[in-house]
Amino acid sequence: MEEKETLKEYRMNYQLAYFDCDYTGHLSLEMMLMLMILASEKQNDSLGTGMKATQKFGAGWVILDYEGHLNGELPRDGENITVGCKIAAYNRFFVVRDFWLENAAGKQVATVRGMFTFMDLKKRKMTPIPEAIMAPYEQKATIRLPRPKSPDKVEVDDRWQSKDYQTRYADIDSNGHVNNARYVEWLLDALPAGFLADHRLTGFRLNYRHEVRPHSLVTSMVAPFDADADEMTSQHVIQVAGQTHASASFDWQKI
Amino acid sequence: MEEKETLKEYRMNYQLAYFDCDYTGHLSLEMMLMLMILASEKQNDSLGTGMKATQKFGAGWVILDYEGHLNGELPRDGENITVGCKIAAYNRFFVVRDFWLENAAGKQVATVRGMFTFMDLKKRKMTPIPEAIMAPYEQKATIRLPRPKSPDKVEVDDRWQSKDYQTRYADIDSNGHVNNARYVEWLLDALPAGFLADHRLTGFRLNYRHEVRPHSLVTSMVAPFDADADEMTSQHVIQVAGQTHASASFDWQKI
Repeated sequence: MEEKETLKEYRMNYQLAYFDCDYTGHLSLEMMLMLMILASEKQNDSLGTGMKATQKFGAGWVILDYEGHLNGELPRDGENITVGCKIAAYNRFFVVRDFWLENAAGKQVATVRGMFTFMDLKKRKMTPIPEAIMAPYEQKATIRLPRPKSPDKVEVDDRWQSKDYQTRYADIDSNGHVNNARYVEWLLDALPAGFLADHRLTGFRLNYRHEVRPHSLVTSMVAPFDADADEMTSQHVIQVAGQTHASASFDWQKI
Repeated sequence: MEEKETLKEYRMNYQLAYFDCDYTGHLSLEMMLMLMILASEKQNDSLGTGMKATQKFGAGWVILDYEGHLNGELPRDGENITVGCKIAAYNRFFVVRDFWLENAAGKQVATVRGMFTFMDLKKRKMTPIPEAIMAPYEQKATIRLPRPKSPDKVEVDDRWQSKDYQTRYADIDSNGHVNNARYVEWLLDALPAGFLADHRLTGFRLNYRHEVRPHSLVTSMVAPFDADADEMTSQHVIQVAGQTHASASFDWQKI
């Protein structure tokens, strides 16, 4: 007999402010991801397994991959949105979380799947997830995980455009390294000026490989692509001192 | 007989998220200013004189000066705060707004006075404030305005340290120019690395002279000062192509 699980969902209401939006007046991708992480932190807190609990184990969650799908335009400044999350699956080392975003009309405009690992904050290495951290979810561990899709495999060559960024104090969060969402600013900033005004993001795959430490010179690189095509995918990497720290594929539709 | 006015106050409750805080885990100065502006926009909206109303006149509010006083440490990630605002005074061209911030315990931890002008968005020039915009405040115009104090008069010389910033797409707001709060990131980023960890801001005076347009190379400069003193004031300017766009004096206490 198959046992059915009821996955614990968490829903967070939020009113978008002007500073959550980009120059087009819509929720920015980096703020969307930050709000999703905030929702998962609130869910953990509500179950007693938040930051305070993980810090007792000297560990914390680290994002490895995101896969996102967007369904129409993102909500606007002032709009009341709902951010939802649940744990899709987990095993001894990884947790896959599903996130979604509803606009003011209740339409689901974005879904994001994220894979996280549990990291020993001193050794900066993966460590097994303690049972106490997962128990309140009342969800069984699984062997196979529904992994987010990876960015396309690409090789950087001379034709790629690049832009350099010195990390700013405001990029650093209270963990002492660059907040993950800031990578998205660098990734998107490598696109042609004004690109977001006439292109709509329809999907993305984003892979984090290494953290960016304070005082780093970051290079954001984008492969050549046809910005005039009706649909296209832009390929991106972020490097520090020639080493790739993150890569991404963004799918676009001309508007 | 003197007529007494009851100034209309507006109070906004807000729970701080991790992305509102800097690397010390406290509300960042730039987010504090953005939340104060948000509160004043909400107050305007509640009186029917928000962005939609000012846009009918082809105009909008522009910040000229801030003077701030901090009373102890700023609230932390997760804390429930209250942001208040009211109009201190106004005349035909300028509005002076008072802002304050209460921490979760109800203690007033910051007061900020800001002077704003009304700008024709096409001509990028000051324009008289329409009566219809101020009428709902039921407050009389005054001749003399309680102006925020200016930054100290300083001359940039060779001993000043400077850092360059290429504006990022994420610095640009839906008005098409760099959001005012981003200047604060550049100003504070010119301080020595880790400075915010062992110094507490006790006051600031900030003057905006010119907007920063997209694709600008911004230089943030700071005068030499004794970072080991118990109390000190740092002097800052922001330049674009050798022209000063903003200046600031920040008062610090060693902690």
